[in-house]
Amino acid sequence: MKTREIAEFLSAELIGDGDVDITAVAAIATANVGEIAFVEKADIIISPAADCLIVPADFTANTASPQIRVKDPKLAFSLVAKKLKKYERRYFGKEHSIIAESADVRTVEIGAFATIGENSFIGEGCEIGDGVRIGKNVIIKRFTVIHPNCVIYENVQIGSNCVVHAGTVIGAEGFGYVRDENGEYHQFPQIGNVVIEDHVEIGANSCVDRGSLGETRIGEGTKIDNLVQIAHNVQIGKRVVIAAMSGVSGSSVIEDDVVIAGQVGIADHVTIRKGVTIGAKSAIFPGKVVGPGVWAGVPAQPIGEYKRQHAHLKGLGRLKTEVKELKKKMD
Amino acid sequence: MKTREIAEFLSAELIGDGDVDITAVAAIATANVGEIAFVEKADIIISPAADCLIVPADFTANTASPQIRVKDPKLAFSLVAKKLKKYERRYFGKEHSIIAESADVRTVEIGAFATIGENSFIGEGCEIGDGVRIGKNVIIKRFTVIHPNCVIYENVQIGSNCVVHAGTVIGAEGFGYVRDENGEYHQFPQIGNVVIEDHVEIGANSCVDRGSLGETRIGEGTKIDNLVQIAHNVQIGKRVVIAAMSGVSGSSVIEDDVVIAGQVGIADHVTIRKGVTIGAKSAIFPGKVVGPGVWAGVPAQPIGEYKRQHAHLKGLGRLKTEVKELKKKMD
Amino acid sequence: MKTREIAEFLSAELIGDGDVDITAVAAIATANVGEIAFVEKADIIISPAADCLIVPADFTANTASPQIRVKDPKLAFSLVAKKLKKYERRYFGKEHSIIAESADVRTVEIGAFATIGENSFIGEGCEIGDGVRIGKNVIIKRFTVIHPNCVIYENVQIGSNCVVHAGTVIGAEGFGYVRDENGEYHQFPQIGNVVIEDHVEIGANSCVDRGSLGETRIGEGTKIDNLVQIAHNVQIGKRVVIAAMSGVSGSSVIEDDVVIAGQVGIADHVTIRKGVTIGAKSAIFPGKVVGPGVWAGVPAQPIGEYKRQHAHLKGLGRLKTEVKELKKKMD
Repeated sequence: MKTREIAEFLSAELIGDGDVDITAVAAIATANVGEIAFVEKADIIISPAADCLIVPADFTANTASPQIRVKDPKLAFSLVAKKLKKYERRYFGKEHSIIAESADVRTVEIGAFATIGENSFIGEGCEIGDGVRIGKNVIIKRFTVIHPNCVIYENVQIGSNCVVHAGTVIGAEGFGYVRDENGEYHQFPQIGNVVIEDHVEIGANSCVDRGSLGETRIGEGTKIDNLVQIAHNVQIGKRVVIAAMSGVSGSSVIEDDVVIAGQVGIADHVTIRKGVTIGAKSAIFPGKVVGPGVWAGVPAQPIGEYKRQHAHLKGLGRLKTEVKELKKKMD
Repeated sequence: MKTREIAEFLSAELIGDGDVDITAVAAIATANVGEIAFVEKADIIISPAADCLIVPADFTANTASPQIRVKDPKLAFSLVAKKLKKYERRYFGKEHSIIAESADVRTVEIGAFATIGENSFIGEGCEIGDGVRIGKNVIIKRFTVIHPNCVIYENVQIGSNCVVHAGTVIGAEGFGYVRDENGEYHQFPQIGNVVIEDHVEIGANSCVDRGSLGETRIGEGTKIDNLVQIAHNVQIGKRVVIAAMSGVSGSSVIEDDVVIAGQVGIADHVTIRKGVTIGAKSAIFPGKVVGPGVWAGVPAQPIGEYKRQHAHLKGLGRLKTEVKELKKKMD
Repeated sequence: MKTREIAEFLSAELIGDGDVDITAVAAIATANVGEIAFVEKADIIISPAADCLIVPADFTANTASPQIRVKDPKLAFSLVAKKLKKYERRYFGKEHSIIAESADVRTVEIGAFATIGENSFIGEGCEIGDGVRIGKNVIIKRFTVIHPNCVIYENVQIGSNCVVHAGTVIGAEGFGYVRDENGEYHQFPQIGNVVIEDHVEIGANSCVDRGSLGETRIGEGTKIDNLVQIAHNVQIGKRVVIAAMSGVSGSSVIEDDVVIAGQVGIADHVTIRKGVTIGAKSAIFPGKVVGPGVWAGVPAQPIGEYKRQHAHLKGLGRLKTEVKELKKKMD
């Protein structure tokens, strides 16, 4: 893309040469010929070799590179990066994989040693990585990427433009048992399914369990990090963000636009209301309804209360001394 | 199964038509023709299309469906679900896998691209999923299911009727190092093994490390969730439940009938006594002996103490104010 | 090895027969003919069948076995174990795998159903396990072991003498998104790489994400346990130890010789100074610079302060009673 085309794509003002060829994005410190970088602050000092800079509207620093002025340089840079991404064929193709005869596979990007079960559908433009396991009756819509060695159990539905990173398991049986009079555990049936809507991204080595009788659902545009656990029958809304190593227990509901930081534990039958943020390492206890605002702690409390309590805790030694002195005086 | 046969199987009273054919379990909200559902409360309002209902002994609601009255409807429903489960062949068979000549494989349910090492034994009725890796000298008894892409290292023993979900790794080397005078770490030998007894179920993407010199053992009927870590030389008793994202460090002992909630951390050389419950996100510090009762917190304390302390914490602001006022009065 | 040769290898004094053949290490309780065990305490009571004992310098117990006296028996035992380890061919060889023509593979130890991408280099003496996925332009130096079903994404570099246990994913895209005005998340480019230096060991089912624009680096001699998360652009120094289920968020720096216990959460843009120890289940908040000493808690504090605060907390009930009594007296 020429610098002029990038400015047009961003509906943004270009200052400088519009005919420079840009082929890749790069960090400001290393950007070089043919590369575009971005700057977040107006007054940053730069000596870039970058062939184009995406800068904030109030950018003042002196630079010879063509500049594209935008409201949110990081966002603009991310959009340009996606635009510049070249599609390269990644996989060896279906001749090294095993695809059930009844499966309907509409993409050529099938990795080696992959397996696709009976009656499954893989839509146009999908990438199914090496060693991916896809069970029976799975539907994967269009342009979705399943990275190597993922396992998708039977009956799972995955939307379009999703990304699932390596080693993630979708549709395993949930953790539900009933104890008998002898203390033995019997599995409660785990025969539901998983529905993942469009534009969902899931990191590596995460788990999304199938519903026990109903479904586990992950809403459109939701992003989930590595090593995350989503239990059976969980309902996650749209544009939810869940950072690494967090877990959501059975039947909990996470409404739209929630942000969950890392290593959070959400117990079962919880409801997290629209737009709530849960701080890292927090815990939401069973059955709670949480909202609105920012919550932190074990159990999680509104952030203001959490901070106040921590301040009190810090002052506990002093308080103890004061009480001691009061006692002495009184005696 | 006919409704009459189900009632007989449960040794329970049937009210209504005994000749209805039941082929599947379903949730009460969606159950339809040929399906059986369950109800937990006596007075629940239902308008089911279900062809059979498992209900509590004191069930009073008006319904046209045949009813089976039991003490524990959820348990009875789970047992019926297991009974109704139809066996379907899942895998493409051993012609697409690599099995060492010296291995003794007595099941036909071998997935594509699986590998089974020298001198390993896979018993009758087992299912070895696509892409499963089984090392040398592994023993897997009868009717055990290893889901796709699991890795079982050499010398591991797995009992009968176990289930291991996708991506789980059993028998990797434990995390034990000795530091030399230059600060370099040298691995302490990790050459022991893992023994998993009958009826154990392990979730997806979990890890059970082999013993360093001795063995790591998981007792009969124990159920382990997704993303759980069991370190080297851990001894887990019978009918233990460990929820997602919990970890047990080296050489700890978990006795029979223990329940460990999610995201719990159990340090090394700990003993958890028979029947103890550990609350979610709790930590047991190294070398502790815990029991009996319910424990919670970091470090874990008996639940009563934990709750009292939390109440005190909540009142800390008030306490501070009271001390301030006392001081003022005194002055 | 003869007992004499082992003593020479350890530069240590041998008491007893120097001509006994030792072929394996074993635990003191089970050691038998041809096996060497170790004892950590001078006065331990032993009745070993072991054919050789590694003992502390002040060992006094009566034993007929040849003894080798060293300063650190556990370290000496670990070094001997490594020395005695017999190399056995483990894998079926490259005829069952798919290797790009442009890849340069210099080892014969390639597992079945493995895939190696274009322009990748696998050095002499490496072991690439069954079902391992190696992307394009990957470099793996010499004598490194990648256990089965690991996934190494494109452009990752791994040094010599490393070990990566089963199911671990190296080089997946980091978790970085930018939100637009409509609330939709767009991926910030994740096109950097991962560099893992020599003698690094990583456990099973862990994740090391690639840098977004720069690199994620793990320094020489660092040891990482199972189910650990290393986010994009993290810089980990030499001889760092990270126990199971801990996570390090984006762009954080862990300097040399740091020890991180289990289930620790380190937020983004943190610096952990050389030699610091972080206790289990602790949290380091974003942007913090931590050092030196031992830290614990959420948020982490110096261990002395942490313990004092816990003592205060335990005494909170008493303090409350004291204030009550003071109030009564005053009234």
